[in-house]
Amino acid sequence: MKNSNSLCKVENLNHVCIAVNDIKKSIHFYSKIFGTKATEITEISDQGVLATLISLGNTHLEFIQPLDVNGSIAKFIQKRGEGIHHICFEVENLEQTLNNLDSGDIDLIDKKPRKGLAGNIAFIHPKSTYGTLIELVDKNSIKELN
Amino acid sequence: MKNSNSLCKVENLNHVCIAVNDIKKSIHFYSKIFGTKATEITEISDQGVLATLISLGNTHLEFIQPLDVNGSIAKFIQKRGEGIHHICFEVENLEQTLNNLDSGDIDLIDKKPRKGLAGNIAFIHPKSTYGTLIELVDKNSIKELN
Repeated sequence: MKNSNSLCKVENLNHVCIAVNDIKKSIHFYSKIFGTKATEITEISDQGVLATLISLGNTHLEFIQPLDVNGSIAKFIQKRGEGIHHICFEVENLEQTLNNLDSGDIDLIDKKPRKGLAGNIAFIHPKSTYGTLIELVDKNSIKELN
Repeated sequence: MKNSNSLCKVENLNHVCIAVNDIKKSIHFYSKIFGTKATEITEISDQGVLATLISLGNTHLEFIQPLDVNGSIAKFIQKRGEGIHHICFEVENLEQTLNNLDSGDIDLIDKKPRKGLAGNIAFIHPKSTYGTLIELVDKNSIKELN
């Protein structure tokens, strides 16, 4: 069903990200019900979060816990409660994809790729996507899970 | 990384569901950026929504538009804005999985499978999952997309 004229050729859904207050408790619960192991919990200092990934079937769940009470993740939880924060799709060439989307008048949070937990990433602004925060990760930069 | 003692053996993420105010506008946008076609828009009367699916890499996006201004989807949008509503995982034997989760003191919205857009489905209560509404679909009941 792919169309060569698409602005953003998605390969796969890399992960669904869930914002939580206590990453250890959440991971304990999800590991118990799904029988999976999480990667090591990592501090991502520029985003002010602790983060980890679990592998689940054809994709991953990413968990993030805010470290900064004034940061965007803490505000998200204060406003909406714990829950799904964003989804992340793999694309073949992120830099080209961002140029395509920008030319197509899609609002981007990041006009250039930057380093994230999953690899080289960028976010599309939810104003452009009917409320859904979408992350894109360059397929060729994806790190293997432990 | 699977553990035979897991309460819920996930095969794949079947879809991510996005609640929107205008399904036609949203589908037009997502089809344009991702170059995909949606299935026909279907009315699911017992849930009071219009719904459609688009195939995207290894999974699908489901879009739902509330028809009932007092229904749970309309209230979700009023409270939190348009955005990701739930995620749906495929499991091998839904009835057995629900029994396992119930025995493990996991709060279930549906203790028995019921018909949904994706197939025979049931929801886990977000109280049990740190805020994330999780749908399970029986793998053997999944309908093929058009």
